[in-house]
Amino acid sequence: MVVKYDVIVIGGGPAGLTAGLYSVRNGLKTAVIAKEIGGTANSILSLENWPGYSGNGAMLMKQFYEQLKKYDGVDIISKDVELISKDEKKKTFTLKTKKDEYEASALILATGTERRKLNIPGEKELTGKGVSYCVTCDAFFFKGKTVAVVGGSDCAATSALALADLVKKVYVIYRGEKLRCEELTTERIQDKPNAEIIYNAIPVRINGKDKVESFEIKHEGKNKEIKLDGIFVEIGSTPLAKFSEELKLKLDDGKYIVVDEDMKTSTEGVFAAGDITHHKLKQVVVASGQGAIAAKSAYEYLQKSRK
Amino acid sequence: MVVKYDVIVIGGGPAGLTAGLYSVRNGLKTAVIAKEIGGTANSILSLENWPGYSGNGAMLMKQFYEQLKKYDGVDIISKDVELISKDEKKKTFTLKTKKDEYEASALILATGTERRKLNIPGEKELTGKGVSYCVTCDAFFFKGKTVAVVGGSDCAATSALALADLVKKVYVIYRGEKLRCEELTTERIQDKPNAEIIYNAIPVRINGKDKVESFEIKHEGKNKEIKLDGIFVEIGSTPLAKFSEELKLKLDDGKYIVVDEDMKTSTEGVFAAGDITHHKLKQVVVASGQGAIAAKSAYEYLQKSRK
Repeated sequence: MVVKYDVIVIGGGPAGLTAGLYSVRNGLKTAVIAKEIGGTANSILSLENWPGYSGNGAMLMKQFYEQLKKYDGVDIISKDVELISKDEKKKTFTLKTKKDEYEASALILATGTERRKLNIPGEKELTGKGVSYCVTCDAFFFKGKTVAVVGGSDCAATSALALADLVKKVYVIYRGEKLRCEELTTERIQDKPNAEIIYNAIPVRINGKDKVESFEIKHEGKNKEIKLDGIFVEIGSTPLAKFSEELKLKLDDGKYIVVDEDMKTSTEGVFAAGDITHHKLKQVVVASGQGAIAAKSAYEYLQKSRK
Repeated sequence: MVVKYDVIVIGGGPAGLTAGLYSVRNGLKTAVIAKEIGGTANSILSLENWPGYSGNGAMLMKQFYEQLKKYDGVDIISKDVELISKDEKKKTFTLKTKKDEYEASALILATGTERRKLNIPGEKELTGKGVSYCVTCDAFFFKGKTVAVVGGSDCAATSALALADLVKKVYVIYRGEKLRCEELTTERIQDKPNAEIIYNAIPVRINGKDKVESFEIKHEGKNKEIKLDGIFVEIGSTPLAKFSEELKLKLDDGKYIVVDEDMKTSTEGVFAAGDITHHKLKQVVVASGQGAIAAKSAYEYLQKSRK
């Protein structure tokens, strides 16, 4: 049996749960389908930039979830969507999970991203204990301490620069010979007395018992151990936009979904919100705001198409 | 004495307080100057669409404020900015309050809007007790009840349509002879068996002791009393963009500040967020997301301009 909805939201992070909330409050029969409630926000150890809140990311995501599930008009479904197809004539979308089938008149994609990992010993065990994938979220905890940023992108470099004003010492660990950021940014890092760029360096292992204590790298053929308190892994994210081909979505160079200011994608009836979109600032509060806008746009789309 | 800041945020609602939070967390010397902390969000009786939250708007705004004032790098100043001028050469902005003067290298405008009032007896006394200025916020409280929407705009009409699916009966009270919305919307309202449009109707008085009980209108020369539970005043908002002329900001037809997707205005060094921008969905969560983006953009602007 195919279960029919007005709106299906794919993704259970800040964008998806907020989109679900706004959609059901607009009186639409709504489903939120997600592999995991909370998404990458669950990994935020201490969330200090969700306005008015103090706690970790997982706790906030639980509050989002508890609030949403009070509404009769919404189904929250813990499944992995495997296939989506659009019926151009009926203007509906069919979604398939391993066992079930769902139909929606409008889709909101809020599938987010996955951070790239170093895949070295100690990384997984010490995530949230000194290993962080979010400078904006966690920089403040390392005030006056010693940290490393791994990566050579513009994002890694500007992160290092921002950290330099806050921490005692910041290392930039990069496998290449020249940072890939703007020249000026490199110069500015070099001008900081407490910043040190180590080129041609390969991360080997992260050491520490309850928290990060040191970082082993391979540098010019030799292993080297750096004592520090924190490691920011800034080697990029992978957008989880696996349905973009079948839905014919316009993507940017980084494979993020391009949206307009109403969170419309290039395909009619498909909206997107949160980290999966081309917007640069990947933050819980930004994703939530976008979720609200996407839900409103989906509502207006359905109002129009139903005449 | 002129106090100098990296960033000055004008406005103390969701957008302004979030912009302040992101700005100080970026390590910038920040001031938030506002006549009133909380802004229009303070008037939300029960805020059900700030994700994960349950309570009124004023309480949430207090939480935003308490969180922000913990940071040493931010000054929260309760004053009314009266004048702003830009020094094109120095690329700084000078702000004047009645007694003081401040200087900033970047400005974030988050001054919001003011809802238009009916200015009739009972309106002020019963605001939050059945009189509402926000269908999106408060519609749900009137499930199964009788309400009126005052206004003939597209916003009023679509609000009435949305309410019809939720309430027992919805009146549309409009002074004109024809709603100013799309034809289709009018037809759809007429098709709803529980919706009634009363044209040529002038609001006279709102009655009720602890909550709204009835609505007196003047219709075809006669006074008429409608028993109901809620009145949605949808006669528009006025953007509070009083500095737009001196800052040479591009405005839309409704006098809202036009921003790009990074919340940049048409004037270098000036950013805007929240209800004051041209974005249509005026919501706490949207304004907050925009505040974060504006702060990030102001930070990047300063990084670039300081080389």
